[in-house]
Amino acid sequence: MKIGEQAFRSIWTEGDEVAIIDQTKLPHELKIVHLTTLEDAARAIADMWVRGAPLIGATAAYGMALALRADPADASLATAYDTLHATRPTAINLRWALDAVRERVGRLDPGARAAAAWTLAGEIADEDVATNRRIGENGLAIIEAIARTKTPGEAVNVLTHCNAGWLATVDWGTATAPVYLAHDKGIPVHVFVDETRPRNQGAGLTAFELGHHGVDHTLVVDNAGGHLMQHGLVDLCIVGSDRTTALGDVCNKIGTYLKALAARDNGVPFYAALPASTVDWRVRDGVAEIPIEQRGGDEVSHVVGMSDRGTVERVRIAPETTPVANYAFDVTPARLVTGLITERGVCAASEAGLAGLFPELARKRA
Amino acid sequence: MKIGEQAFRSIWTEGDEVAIIDQTKLPHELKIVHLTTLEDAARAIADMWVRGAPLIGATAAYGMALALRADPADASLATAYDTLHATRPTAINLRWALDAVRERVGRLDPGARAAAAWTLAGEIADEDVATNRRIGENGLAIIEAIARTKTPGEAVNVLTHCNAGWLATVDWGTATAPVYLAHDKGIPVHVFVDETRPRNQGAGLTAFELGHHGVDHTLVVDNAGGHLMQHGLVDLCIVGSDRTTALGDVCNKIGTYLKALAARDNGVPFYAALPASTVDWRVRDGVAEIPIEQRGGDEVSHVVGMSDRGTVERVRIAPETTPVANYAFDVTPARLVTGLITERGVCAASEAGLAGLFPELARKRA
Repeated sequence: MKIGEQAFRSIWTEGDEVAIIDQTKLPHELKIVHLTTLEDAARAIADMWVRGAPLIGATAAYGMALALRADPADASLATAYDTLHATRPTAINLRWALDAVRERVGRLDPGARAAAAWTLAGEIADEDVATNRRIGENGLAIIEAIARTKTPGEAVNVLTHCNAGWLATVDWGTATAPVYLAHDKGIPVHVFVDETRPRNQGAGLTAFELGHHGVDHTLVVDNAGGHLMQHGLVDLCIVGSDRTTALGDVCNKIGTYLKALAARDNGVPFYAALPASTVDWRVRDGVAEIPIEQRGGDEVSHVVGMSDRGTVERVRIAPETTPVANYAFDVTPARLVTGLITERGVCAASEAGLAGLFPELARKRA
Repeated sequence: MKIGEQAFRSIWTEGDEVAIIDQTKLPHELKIVHLTTLEDAARAIADMWVRGAPLIGATAAYGMALALRADPADASLATAYDTLHATRPTAINLRWALDAVRERVGRLDPGARAAAAWTLAGEIADEDVATNRRIGENGLAIIEAIARTKTPGEAVNVLTHCNAGWLATVDWGTATAPVYLAHDKGIPVHVFVDETRPRNQGAGLTAFELGHHGVDHTLVVDNAGGHLMQHGLVDLCIVGSDRTTALGDVCNKIGTYLKALAARDNGVPFYAALPASTVDWRVRDGVAEIPIEQRGGDEVSHVVGMSDRGTVERVRIAPETTPVANYAFDVTPARLVTGLITERGVCAASEAGLAGLFPELARKRA
């Protein structure tokens, strides 16, 4: 997608170097960082310069390639794997990408390893782009159907939560892919962007993305979505998914569940857009079975932004001694989800729906 | 209620002066301001040093008394009325208090006016305290009933949104009154405090209040309430009401509706605590009939807090050019409200419920 007039991916190569955007600096500064060593890649993941499961996976794969270029021996391979895995140990895509590289290059002569890992990292990135583009095409049909009910020029209003955008993937995003395709096709589309406290990925990343790509949008506080839906201002909700259960429950950024409730109460379709890689086929009841990560309280008691002086500052919004809880995700039960937009099509948020699109995965993991 | 070890009201007299807390400085600084002139009182209301309908009303009444002390003539009375009314022209309690003072003192000799207005202002403040205390007693029964289902020492968990606390009234608050009474009676109670974006009255005021009075509480982002209720961590919700319809719809701070939806989805009782003065007997369907104020977008794109250097700063969390919408309130339909906690008792959120407790008001305004 575009930043300014230039097309970007969230990770790309320049000669022998890997380039990323330091997303901790967004939306206030577009800082491009070049990764040339294993340590660079590990730091980019650990310090959250890159985030979002697909982007973390691609960065880790390139990190393996950079390590093997410096030293292709077995010991180096093992060290690179462990170093990168330790950066975000619970990230499923990270592990998956590291395993893929180790499997592909472990059998090769050391002299061939770096080039093979580099190639594979590129394939992982390209495959993510293709997956998201297919999600976008499948979701586009939903937006087009709504657009046909509008008067010419009237926008389809989408509400989204957090950032399941191109910055969280290699390109297109998941929840945003249908929106970008609709926009690029000339269908009028407008997005209500939840700011997404506590980390404000909506205000900082989704608003940044949509603005630069030229998609009409409005930033609102997380509290506003119910009011918008009560007044007919939202045609559909599209969110991402960090983890999807075999029965179609959607674990996503905290607050997603509240929007799903408002959507149901007002007859607004509520979709989650996700690649099959987010489905955890062993989990059935998301509310009961998925442990919800609790993060540091500072994210709630403090807010980071740009001061009127042009410096990035952190301000405290609560009394210094206030106790804080910070739950990172919640689970939206499948009964509230109109459908899942995947790379193979749109299905019901149900066991039958998912198994119908991904029979081989449902069988294997069941 | 207490700040530190000292009992406070949000407005009080010291000799011939009126004292208030500059609430725009909370929670970072406890700044007490003495009002000695009409202009002082008008500024305190206009600049939101005082906020909350009952507190605005009491401040306005004292402002009339201060004006009449300087000049008790008819022209001064009229000027004071107009000056104070212009500070927050849509605040219903402000108008009501000004009318009450004008009616009481207009018939008196000029020489008696200032003292009479001063006395009436005190009566208005005391009456608010008594009303809220009765709301508290009526809500206390609900907390006590839940406490009886707990093991000894186990807290009753209340979730509240925004600040319907003592700082928004003269004392006790509305939503917080049952909590303070339960706490003072030794019933273990714990409050989940929604931060309440965009103005963060939960993080800045409710957390401040509860902390100083010694009530156990936890600050959470507005997104968290659904997750908390899914996991049985909330026993009941109590919120305030800015305006209540004759049929029991509750217009309150933006985001209240989302919490009511989560409460219903999880079988959690959801109460609004309110004095009869918030009931607008002419309005029936709150969603259709109540116009929702839109405020400046800066409240959404920026956050105010204390920097690590100890200075109060404003930081921007979104790109500079991001379009913003800022709806101040939403309407929770009566069907989602378990009951209304009023100064005359708890009633169903319905026409029959309200008319049963307030027959004379329902008849008069119907």
